[in-house]
Amino acid sequence: MADIRQQALDYHEFPVPGKTAVSITKPAQTSLDLALAYSPGVAEPVREIASQPDDAYRYTNKGNSVAVISNGTAILGLGNLGPLASKPVMEGKALLFKHFANIDGVDIEVKHRTPEEFVNTVEAIADTFGGVNLEDIKAPECFEIEKQLIERCNVPVFHDDQHGTAIVTAAGMINALEIQGKSIETAIFVCMGAGAAAIACMTMLVKCGALRENVYMLDRKGVLHTRREDINEYKALFANNTDKRTLQDVIQGADVFLGLSGADLLAPEDIALMAENPVIFACSNPDPEISPELAHATRQDLIMGTGRSDYPNQVNNVLCFPFIFRGALDVRASKINDEMKIAAVHAIAAIAKEPVPQSVLDAYDGVDSLSFGADYVLPKPMDPRLLPAVAKAVAKAAIDSGVAALTDLPDNYMA
Amino acid sequence: MADIRQQALDYHEFPVPGKTAVSITKPAQTSLDLALAYSPGVAEPVREIASQPDDAYRYTNKGNSVAVISNGTAILGLGNLGPLASKPVMEGKALLFKHFANIDGVDIEVKHRTPEEFVNTVEAIADTFGGVNLEDIKAPECFEIEKQLIERCNVPVFHDDQHGTAIVTAAGMINALEIQGKSIETAIFVCMGAGAAAIACMTMLVKCGALRENVYMLDRKGVLHTRREDINEYKALFANNTDKRTLQDVIQGADVFLGLSGADLLAPEDIALMAENPVIFACSNPDPEISPELAHATRQDLIMGTGRSDYPNQVNNVLCFPFIFRGALDVRASKINDEMKIAAVHAIAAIAKEPVPQSVLDAYDGVDSLSFGADYVLPKPMDPRLLPAVAKAVAKAAIDSGVAALTDLPDNYMA
Repeated sequence: MADIRQQALDYHEFPVPGKTAVSITKPAQTSLDLALAYSPGVAEPVREIASQPDDAYRYTNKGNSVAVISNGTAILGLGNLGPLASKPVMEGKALLFKHFANIDGVDIEVKHRTPEEFVNTVEAIADTFGGVNLEDIKAPECFEIEKQLIERCNVPVFHDDQHGTAIVTAAGMINALEIQGKSIETAIFVCMGAGAAAIACMTMLVKCGALRENVYMLDRKGVLHTRREDINEYKALFANNTDKRTLQDVIQGADVFLGLSGADLLAPEDIALMAENPVIFACSNPDPEISPELAHATRQDLIMGTGRSDYPNQVNNVLCFPFIFRGALDVRASKINDEMKIAAVHAIAAIAKEPVPQSVLDAYDGVDSLSFGADYVLPKPMDPRLLPAVAKAVAKAAIDSGVAALTDLPDNYMA
Repeated sequence: MADIRQQALDYHEFPVPGKTAVSITKPAQTSLDLALAYSPGVAEPVREIASQPDDAYRYTNKGNSVAVISNGTAILGLGNLGPLASKPVMEGKALLFKHFANIDGVDIEVKHRTPEEFVNTVEAIADTFGGVNLEDIKAPECFEIEKQLIERCNVPVFHDDQHGTAIVTAAGMINALEIQGKSIETAIFVCMGAGAAAIACMTMLVKCGALRENVYMLDRKGVLHTRREDINEYKALFANNTDKRTLQDVIQGADVFLGLSGADLLAPEDIALMAENPVIFACSNPDPEISPELAHATRQDLIMGTGRSDYPNQVNNVLCFPFIFRGALDVRASKINDEMKIAAVHAIAAIAKEPVPQSVLDAYDGVDSLSFGADYVLPKPMDPRLLPAVAKAVAKAAIDSGVAALTDLPDNYMA
């Protein structure tokens, strides 16, 4: 582990600091090149955009760029370490945007005293970009921040920790429930953790068919229920009208355990109480709520997912965010609405049911075959089918739901 | 001209919109690569930066990046067209930063209602970058905006329209005066225009030895003098205790005319009144205050500079801004102070006195030779000596004046 840590530091430091840079996409060698790129030629696109703002998409890189913005208040699982410390994560996200979807991610770390200041700052710069990806902002402020920015910005605003997690979790969950022979409409859900990701996941699962009264969400003090007066308005959405108070009360007979809480908070005795053929997504990072080894040793009829790449069924946001933004940018969506998110859920889920290309297997050492089933409910991050399939589904949903400036899918979507 | 306009639009639109993109500087192909770049490896640089903020320069691209920021209130000579319309210019500047100094320029266009909001926005995001280059912000707001940002930011803030112009103008002026056999300390200056660039140019020339009482600055209403009550505090710095009121009053016997005003505002009759061997920098763009043809037809003893690339002695900010930021970044200067600016002036001026490499001549069609003299008082933008010479002079001045975090010049400066 010490080696991996040093390897990660070395990766970031050498041969140049960081992971991203700016590159030039046009000729810039001759005097004429520079006269077109800058003075006097640049006056022409300036005039065009001044008279027709949409021409920014024709003459600048706006339409292919996404700001990756954080205030550093909830960095990974490390807590509130401030904006500057979040920079490696935001540059990392920019790297993933580029690698997976050829989107130009620009990291911006914002210093502020109040959420209102943060919103004002992001709103002021948002038009620079084709979209805004919010990242590592702590709850509950993240909810109000995202809501206000969606209202005030002309470009899509997406808090990936909430919605990226929710979309990928829902895609995997729908497939896992299908394999276990369960219906999402009747399944009983236990969600340990009541932060931004947990609330977003359960909200998405409800949009995909789960019944709110079948959801038991727990924070550090136990089950969220309608008599609790110590919970904020966002947790209150999942306050269950129940007498059950503890994990043990609710896990009894549950079909699904979703963990977005902390390491080792789920015991073998707990999962022994679950219904037959349960689904356990233990997504605490880096250490899940229960290790797959321990879970499988306790019972054999479960499907297990984690946040880790070294176990089957990794619930990884990278299955979603590059592609949902690709689709949104390609039709100039003004928002990423529920229709687009649900389209992404189903597009991701569908890929796991298709035969896996050899190139995907080649990318994963020691993986000889993958086929839809208990150990393969979600596609792998390096699956090249994600980009065209998810982006197209999202773009189509944007057009159909009326939030796209373009009315046709781009030509390259038709291949 | 119509062709050039269309060529400029085509350059910006095809094959992809815009001129810049984001690129990845580290391996990002394998699962291990991505585990180092993002989760879980990225947690290591996050922790390091949280405990030692300066480590952002080790583990992220902060130290090689400059934000190119505008509010679009004074775009080129086109006026207040709003932030989005300024985007092609800011992307163009980012292109020049990369091309000339390998700096990663990130364009940010800021929407705001008050200068205070603009300052708050830029301050909030400034730590993302190694420096902030302000651009195309109208006077007089730009003075207070820059002053406040310099006070409130930890990284260098530089308004190029003011100081880049001033540095290059001063470099060329010092050389032109030398060739004309004049002393800057006794020369009489007429500056037509009293905007941000004009005030910055004359301020820099005063720092380089010009006497303030020898400067006559004119705005649209005539000479700035001490009895005028209609001028702001910035123009008031150049209010001359004089009875002279018009251009004709002050141009009589003047050694220098500096134009930062508008096309064709200087007549042959005016320059006929100047002292022997005058210097005329007619920098209005794209059309100078007087054309070089007309000026030279009027008298033969002058040295003429313009803002244009198709005449000798182009006063072009690109001679300065990539290299002053390169020097500032390379020693982690917290400011770009007067010592650094004056070092840049003299470094740029010195290059014009050296023999010109063949590669520079090759880059300019139709230029067979260049040697220090009336038609060559400033180096050409594509001169490869600018980067090492100006950056080193600036970095050294930063160290010597105590604003650099590093105490030694980088190794590559020693070549």
